[in-house]
Amino acid sequence: MTTPEIAPTSAGADGRLPDGLDTPCLVVDLGIVERNTRLITSQLAQRRVALRPHTKTHKSVRLARVQLDAGAQGITVGNLGEAEVMRAGGIEDIFVAYPLWAVGPKAHRLRALLDGGPLIVGLDSVAAAERLAAAAGGAAQPLSVMIEVDPGNRRTGVRPEQAGRTAAAARSLGLDVAGVFAFGGHAYQGVDAVAAAAADEVDTLTRAVESLRAEGIESRVVSAGSTPTALGAATGLVTEIRAGTYLLGDRQVRALAARAMDGLALRVAATVVSTAVEGQVVIDAGAKILAKDQAPYIDGFGELVGYPGAIVERLFDYHGVVRIPPGTRPPHLGEVVAVLPNHACPVVNLVDDFVVLREGAFVDRWPVDARGRNG
Amino acid sequence: MTTPEIAPTSAGADGRLPDGLDTPCLVVDLGIVERNTRLITSQLAQRRVALRPHTKTHKSVRLARVQLDAGAQGITVGNLGEAEVMRAGGIEDIFVAYPLWAVGPKAHRLRALLDGGPLIVGLDSVAAAERLAAAAGGAAQPLSVMIEVDPGNRRTGVRPEQAGRTAAAARSLGLDVAGVFAFGGHAYQGVDAVAAAAADEVDTLTRAVESLRAEGIESRVVSAGSTPTALGAATGLVTEIRAGTYLLGDRQVRALAARAMDGLALRVAATVVSTAVEGQVVIDAGAKILAKDQAPYIDGFGELVGYPGAIVERLFDYHGVVRIPPGTRPPHLGEVVAVLPNHACPVVNLVDDFVVLREGAFVDRWPVDARGRNG
Repeated sequence: MTTPEIAPTSAGADGRLPDGLDTPCLVVDLGIVERNTRLITSQLAQRRVALRPHTKTHKSVRLARVQLDAGAQGITVGNLGEAEVMRAGGIEDIFVAYPLWAVGPKAHRLRALLDGGPLIVGLDSVAAAERLAAAAGGAAQPLSVMIEVDPGNRRTGVRPEQAGRTAAAARSLGLDVAGVFAFGGHAYQGVDAVAAAAADEVDTLTRAVESLRAEGIESRVVSAGSTPTALGAATGLVTEIRAGTYLLGDRQVRALAARAMDGLALRVAATVVSTAVEGQVVIDAGAKILAKDQAPYIDGFGELVGYPGAIVERLFDYHGVVRIPPGTRPPHLGEVVAVLPNHACPVVNLVDDFVVLREGAFVDRWPVDARGRNG
Repeated sequence: MTTPEIAPTSAGADGRLPDGLDTPCLVVDLGIVERNTRLITSQLAQRRVALRPHTKTHKSVRLARVQLDAGAQGITVGNLGEAEVMRAGGIEDIFVAYPLWAVGPKAHRLRALLDGGPLIVGLDSVAAAERLAAAAGGAAQPLSVMIEVDPGNRRTGVRPEQAGRTAAAARSLGLDVAGVFAFGGHAYQGVDAVAAAAADEVDTLTRAVESLRAEGIESRVVSAGSTPTALGAATGLVTEIRAGTYLLGDRQVRALAARAMDGLALRVAATVVSTAVEGQVVIDAGAKILAKDQAPYIDGFGELVGYPGAIVERLFDYHGVVRIPPGTRPPHLGEVVAVLPNHACPVVNLVDDFVVLREGAFVDRWPVDARGRNG
């Protein structure tokens, strides 16, 4: 590791919040956001690898612009709804890193996007390629596709040795095969899994590139990554990294990918509404704003900034029960506290906008433009 | 038990979906909804107890109207945002069953609601009562409050023997003390915990009523319940039940409260987008529509209707990985499947509207009016 670990409550995590917030709400520190994206962009640039951030993390056109302004070469999205919102926001270069099944309304939506600019879409089956080709047929420009290969995450993606056959079928259907992509999501099992998952991405993609080459197809784009594997996978034939969570940060990536970030920019601001039951306080941030993601290497559903050991232990829809370690000072009834969530992506999707700060001072409210766009 | 258990895939769960749905989306069968609310209303009426359904489950004015039309005496909400939406929808009798901390924007919002009609709010501290009284001061009508007591859920609520003192303080501040309420959320630990949690609600509320009486305050309203404890707690001094999830149903309440429901009305419609990895299929319903609620008595994050043993085993933001039991027929690539979620409340909050069906036929799309209203 070349940079120090982010300490649990450091890096902008002093918990300062402006007065008068109507809780619960989401707060993002723009200074940390800018430093995070400059850091990873420059670290990747040193490796001659581009950043194509996954914008499902923030679903915000303005935050995508911050990433592009700092040198990202385009964006990644998780579905057509996000692509539509980002395109409407003026962003041209979009990769839908998802095995789209383009029939019915989705076929029409895909075609409308393609008529408005270049588009790259993932696939992991010949049957999906057939639907994509039918949906894109007759468009002014060809639809570009990326063949997904599975680096051991066991979610989506063909085996690397099948990639060439799938790519050849896609090409014969009139699709433009841009290259191959992989997601080493098994990195999220724990810090000990991260380096191996990054190596799996590189190895799988290398074999996929060879498989395409055997069919006479050269991969212009070789796309890897997640925030944990971002730096480890930026090597060999890999041309771009699709990290997303690094921008806002959360307890998961703090544990797995500290060297890829300068700080944690996202907080849930909450008010202590009950201290009636001993040994705990209850805040007005529940499952409907903190989400219920858990991981074996972090306890509970969130932590209170500035209150070491104060963990959100139980979540109801609108109540978060925070355990107060014996002998420590609890926040008082009515106090506004800052909560670090476990996983930024589902949290952002639960609000219509976030409060944007810089160094703790109010800047603006920015909409979560693609909130609720699930397909 | 007076009515049979709901079988895993019965009661409207035949999975029939109309053609042309753009997945993922939420589907609600209105026939089942109507039968569910008639059933619980009549079961409670036999016990001379009213239903005040918790509308955080559906956040829909139109579904609240279905409940009121079937005999519910008013509604429960979890925060001011939901109260504002329901009031704007023309619903008068609203109980905010939450220990509101009414300062800043919330004080103004509370006052506006009170100026528009009667309002009942929960509290579990004298300090909260002081803020409520200040916010409500000078309004045309008094603010009604309910004292929350803890029946062993260890979340919010004073001990029953403290309830009278808290109530007396509230009364001396000019608040109208309507009565007491409790939530036996520990019923959700498992089916063996349900009867005891219901008994805890009744016992705690009985002691709270006595505590108020010792201060010269008679409880007009004694409010208990959740869907699991609804029928068990509808006894003794209890005057109303605040069940919510019974209306739509989910895997949790199917396991805990089958006799309170006629069927499960809620489905997530999803498309199989990948079959590339053996032994599983991947659907386009991930954590951002199924939510990540789990319980020890149900496996995974959801189940596929009509495919016994097909469980949503892993969730990514937009991918649900469904395990297919060996030797069983999987859904095919591109098939639209119906998923039963674990917990209805967070799922509804993740979409802007749902597709309303009756007997499998399309009726309309209804908005989730209070989606994202968290405070």
